[in-house]
Amino acid sequence: MSKNQVDLLKADEDLHGGVCVELKEPMDSQEFSIRLSASLSQWRLQDKKGVWIKLPISQSNLVEAAVKEGFKYHHAEPDYLMLVKWIPEIADTLPANASHRVGIGAFVMNDNREVLVVQEKNGKFKDLGVWKYPTGVVNEGEDICDAAVREVKEETGVDTEFVEVLAFRQSHMSFFNKSDMFFVCMLKPQSFEIQKQVVEIADAKWMPVAEYAAQPFIQNHELFSLVSKICLAKTDSNYSGFSGRATTSSSGKTTHLYFNHQYCDNILSLDISH
Amino acid sequence: MSKNQVDLLKADEDLHGGVCVELKEPMDSQEFSIRLSASLSQWRLQDKKGVWIKLPISQSNLVEAAVKEGFKYHHAEPDYLMLVKWIPEIADTLPANASHRVGIGAFVMNDNREVLVVQEKNGKFKDLGVWKYPTGVVNEGEDICDAAVREVKEETGVDTEFVEVLAFRQSHMSFFNKSDMFFVCMLKPQSFEIQKQVVEIADAKWMPVAEYAAQPFIQNHELFSLVSKICLAKTDSNYSGFSGRATTSSSGKTTHLYFNHQYCDNILSLDISH
Repeated sequence: MSKNQVDLLKADEDLHGGVCVELKEPMDSQEFSIRLSASLSQWRLQDKKGVWIKLPISQSNLVEAAVKEGFKYHHAEPDYLMLVKWIPEIADTLPANASHRVGIGAFVMNDNREVLVVQEKNGKFKDLGVWKYPTGVVNEGEDICDAAVREVKEETGVDTEFVEVLAFRQSHMSFFNKSDMFFVCMLKPQSFEIQKQVVEIADAKWMPVAEYAAQPFIQNHELFSLVSKICLAKTDSNYSGFSGRATTSSSGKTTHLYFNHQYCDNILSLDISH
Repeated sequence: MSKNQVDLLKADEDLHGGVCVELKEPMDSQEFSIRLSASLSQWRLQDKKGVWIKLPISQSNLVEAAVKEGFKYHHAEPDYLMLVKWIPEIADTLPANASHRVGIGAFVMNDNREVLVVQEKNGKFKDLGVWKYPTGVVNEGEDICDAAVREVKEETGVDTEFVEVLAFRQSHMSFFNKSDMFFVCMLKPQSFEIQKQVVEIADAKWMPVAEYAAQPFIQNHELFSLVSKICLAKTDSNYSGFSGRATTSSSGKTTHLYFNHQYCDNILSLDISH
């Protein structure tokens, strides 16, 4: 660049009146600082709203310069940091960061009224000798129904089919200041031989459901006891949870809608146009 | 510090065999670099697993030094960045970052079969003239049931009581690479006079439910149409969703468990000990 010119940072417009800078090439922090400052003046003149900077972790040398220009952190993943600055004087309408982790518990019962249970090598159940149903965290981009099937397969080797969500729990301050959504899923076994996963699972077996529910730990903890009762109500009476249905959203994406399947036929044939 | 000594960084042990450094005072990046390197050698000797560094945004000058020592980003909030390094050779068992944002939609119907609807000033419904039910994002630490009541109050001034979750939807790639959980809630109005919020809401009113459902936009989009049908099934027949119940988790926290309330009495009186 010449002495009298500063190259503005390359930015893409977003759909909300803002711009996004994605730095893919290395840059000296002093050069970045000068170009960012000049770019901000320009964006201010253009009445831009939110300014986003996505910095790959390899550009961690530029974080300080962005913060000095008034940027805040928005979110981070292992390999990048997203910073944002809101230019207008009015309150920002920036999208919230992800606030919840999503987990599943898998209740799998066979025709002998035996439930698939595991003992974990780590975590809070480690030394309690508690037999619990398989649980796990939903991966990025994974559907709840798929996560339940995957976790059961990984932990026990048993193939299953997703039936429905029996209940869900929301809890707060689960890790750092973040919250947790936990979905109790009912699954139907498609195979029965157990091959336990070695790293996390100490033992796995089919256990009579009454024996499972009679464990003191389950009896003495309201949440576990309530969930056991719901699972039994599903098995023994006509309790109905939410089953999943693939639907198309207004933006054309396929998403899963979960609702009470007992009324599904009635609902789908309902004429709502009159 | 003397010439022959390096002060190790102050670190707290965590419950998973790791340590956490929380830097509250400003530090020169070169000093930090030397102390971090020496501390890492010590933690390696002590067989520590995950090393966490929480850097307030005011310490953004230290990000680069941590990354040079092999730290990755874990998550960030507006005012801090959490970095982590896994020391052992085996695969890490670090907790996943939050992956989902949680939103609510509020279906509020009065005794005249009128539903509470709004037109938004911004967003994708802005110029479509669509009347939609109030929606919003759940705040950090907020329960779904409370968020629904709050959003209706904020957008329309109407007081409501949470009844149940009628359905929920999980969708992916909603913002950046993150996912979204959206809970359709049924609420009962406790007041009827509308006082719309000025910044985001262009208009708000009570609209006959048939008129709401007959809107071309609702008719032509599978997800909206399905949700409308579920809401009508709740109003006109015995569709049952999940209602919330405060329960105590195994760690002693109060959390909300949502399940099909129709069976609630049966479930609570169930004896699972035999």
